Amino acid sequence: MVKTNLPLDADRLWADVMALAEITDPARPYTRRSFTALFLEGRALLARWFAEAGLTTHIDTAGNLIGRLEGRNPALGVIALGSHSDTVPSGGRFDGIAGVVTGLEVVRALRDAGTRLEHSIEVIDFLAEEPSEYGLSCIGSRGLVGVLDGKMLDLTEPAGEKLRDALRRVGGDPDRLDEARRNDIKGFLELHIEQGIVLESQSIDVGIVTSIVGIRRIEIVFDGAADHAGTTPLHLRHDALVAAARTVASVRDVAEQLAAETSGYFVATVGILTVEPSASNVVPGRCRLIIDARTTDPVFTERFVAAIDRDSAAHAAAAKVTRTAFTILSDGPPVACAPALRDALHRGAESLGLSATDLASGAGHDAAFMSRICPSAMIFVPSKGGKSHAPEEWTDRDEIAAGAAVMLQALKDLDQSLARNAGARSSETSKSQGAT
Amino acid sequence: MVKTNLPLDADRLWADVMALAEITDPARPYTRRSFTALFLEGRALLARWFAEAGLTTHIDTAGNLIGRLEGRNPALGVIALGSHSDTVPSGGRFDGIAGVVTGLEVVRALRDAGTRLEHSIEVIDFLAEEPSEYGLSCIGSRGLVGVLDGKMLDLTEPAGEKLRDALRRVGGDPDRLDEARRNDIKGFLELHIEQGIVLESQSIDVGIVTSIVGIRRIEIVFDGAADHAGTTPLHLRHDALVAAARTVASVRDVAEQLAAETSGYFVATVGILTVEPSASNVVPGRCRLIIDARTTDPVFTERFVAAIDRDSAAHAAAAKVTRTAFTILSDGPPVACAPALRDALHRGAESLGLSATDLASGAGHDAAFMSRICPSAMIFVPSKGGKSHAPEEWTDRDEIAAGAAVMLQALKDLDQSLARNAGARSSETSKSQGAT
Repeated sequence: MVKTNLPLDADRLWADVMALAEITDPARPYTRRSFTALFLEGRALLARWFAEAGLTTHIDTAGNLIGRLEGRNPALGVIALGSHSDTVPSGGRFDGIAGVVTGLEVVRALRDAGTRLEHSIEVIDFLAEEPSEYGLSCIGSRGLVGVLDGKMLDLTEPAGEKLRDALRRVGGDPDRLDEARRNDIKGFLELHIEQGIVLESQSIDVGIVTSIVGIRRIEIVFDGAADHAGTTPLHLRHDALVAAARTVASVRDVAEQLAAETSGYFVATVGILTVEPSASNVVPGRCRLIIDARTTDPVFTERFVAAIDRDSAAHAAAAKVTRTAFTILSDGPPVACAPALRDALHRGAESLGLSATDLASGAGHDAAFMSRICPSAMIFVPSKGGKSHAPEEWTDRDEIAAGAAVMLQALKDLDQSLARNAGARSSETSKSQGAT
Repeated sequence: MVKTNLPLDADRLWADVMALAEITDPARPYTRRSFTALFLEGRALLARWFAEAGLTTHIDTAGNLIGRLEGRNPALGVIALGSHSDTVPSGGRFDGIAGVVTGLEVVRALRDAGTRLEHSIEVIDFLAEEPSEYGLSCIGSRGLVGVLDGKMLDLTEPAGEKLRDALRRVGGDPDRLDEARRNDIKGFLELHIEQGIVLESQSIDVGIVTSIVGIRRIEIVFDGAADHAGTTPLHLRHDALVAAARTVASVRDVAEQLAAETSGYFVATVGILTVEPSASNVVPGRCRLIIDARTTDPVFTERFVAAIDRDSAAHAAAAKVTRTAFTILSDGPPVACAPALRDALHRGAESLGLSATDLASGAGHDAAFMSRICPSAMIFVPSKGGKSHAPEEWTDRDEIAAGAAVMLQALKDLDQSLARNAGARSSETSKSQGAT
């Protein structure tokens, strides 16, 4: 059931999502890859909107765009809202964007209603949530929680730019990353499209996320010899693609076995496979592939990695090539969302007469990293046909507005309950101090 | 055994091969891909050398750079020498180049010696012998023999340029291709590096090619769905890379079976595999691969194609993707070299005291297409370690010079024998005409 009388401007919210979508590579809508000129163009528009909404705006040293509205009682700290504005190649108009614009709209709605909260509110556009050309996701939220390390900063994308240099180029500062690390955020809420079909198929307005899958990314490189494809007999070849292709098949076969065994969730994917030198009459001399494995149960990730380690080594030996890299690029454990924030979201939906259900997230999100420094939770809005990371990605105007309204209600709820708790803690501290 | 007193200038020949090698993409020597600015720079240098050697130079409508030295008796027609100046990515300094520069050096040696032949001599730098971004090899020699068709001209490279437009850009004319078709060439000789280890391992100066493998190139495209790699369960996926990877494995497995069965030569390779959209968290929605299959026995090519047709269709069905293309991009049958020209090459080696052996070519060459319009033959010079299509490609100065000297001797031999035969035919024609 979708309400028409929501405490925010559904049209304004929708218009901004659509306006941001227009900033795309025209050859493959909707594409606004992090670190590109288009990405910076999108951010400039966001920064203008942030400023027009009265937010004090800056880019932190981890490259996150942050707009801040001071609270009545800044000492209480910050409640943050947000998501990301970058996309995958040929992605959609909503993934990430809906969450950033919702954060902005919630702040605008508060101001329109003349409501000033106790906590300061920050709207965050996290840098590079989607795996960029560096094969690493959630760069900005990693930085904000203090886990973007020097090895990650040294990653180099295919055109040769190091992540540390790209970060500097978009307004961050890799040499002062510690300044991005926050300890004043008391809660984080992220709205996102579901990217699955649960809400649509059951006609439920919003999903309240219980947990977010852990994601491990592994890079494998095979080095062989780029010999002539005509004059090199098969038994003298060192064909890197033969090893890589058999590894892709193993990833699928092992993943299917584990998915059948687990009571939780398990998927694994090879989304990137590059071949060098890539000429039809040259035996592939080098192949690189990236595996993305996700589960709600870390034991299955370990079993998967052990099986692929064994299989890829065997495929390399059989093809007489060298496996020159088997590298864990990133490893985020599964994350449970904060019960208090989930409850606030449920109460928000109930107060608006909207239907809600609990569900797990198969996608990784900035909220998974934010949960390392503060209680965090997520609200999902329906995805038409479950489609995402594709131009067909779709959520109706009213569906986003409903989710945004739930977030607004939950924010006001949390502002009060966190202030009360802080007061109670402070008075307990006084009491205990009085007792000594 | 390498002679030091050869009837040509070994240093000049060597210096020109090295000078052409300098024209390379500095990031990946030695790369001078057809249709690029570097390729045109190399051709401008060749054209200058051709002119300095007294050759009348032009580019035909198929994009071949041709230098011509008029004979005493132009009515006899042309004997052509040549090869190609383009390279694979990260290729070598000799493949193709050695043959073009040898053709030029042979003409210079004739002029230096004051020798004028009966036939006109042409030195040809064939356009795009290596498979360019179009996945098609021997574009120039196909054009010169009249088999470059409209479908090939419509091929589009990844950046979107059609072959017909690229051809125009390098000086050809796709609308007047029939003018490139020749009927006045009476013999063709091509010097090339062996790209194998027979000559080096047996310490033989030159190889006289008996036959050139047939090459069939097949493009397969799998179309699936670019779904989210986190939220799409395995059983709901349409993963194009899973089908493509299993097809790569089939190509290798089937090729090994056939190579073990044939008494001739059989190899097959997947040298190109592209993945779209190529992001680590997106299920591959589209994959394209190109298979290169080569044999001296066409029956094995047919068996191979039938097996891969069957296997790739099965892999597509299992991965729930559509095989949207299974296209024969090109199909050159095996070619036997002309016995009269092979004999002339053997006599040339013998006259110079050089050792020679017969051998088959596992690589395709412009000579295979030239054999469709005139008797053609090839001379191989040693490849160090059999390496080619790689920066390590190497042939010694004296080894190229020895091959060039054999070609010069064979050319003079053929000029005489072809002139005699033409005279005999002409007198027979007169006699038979007289008898009617």
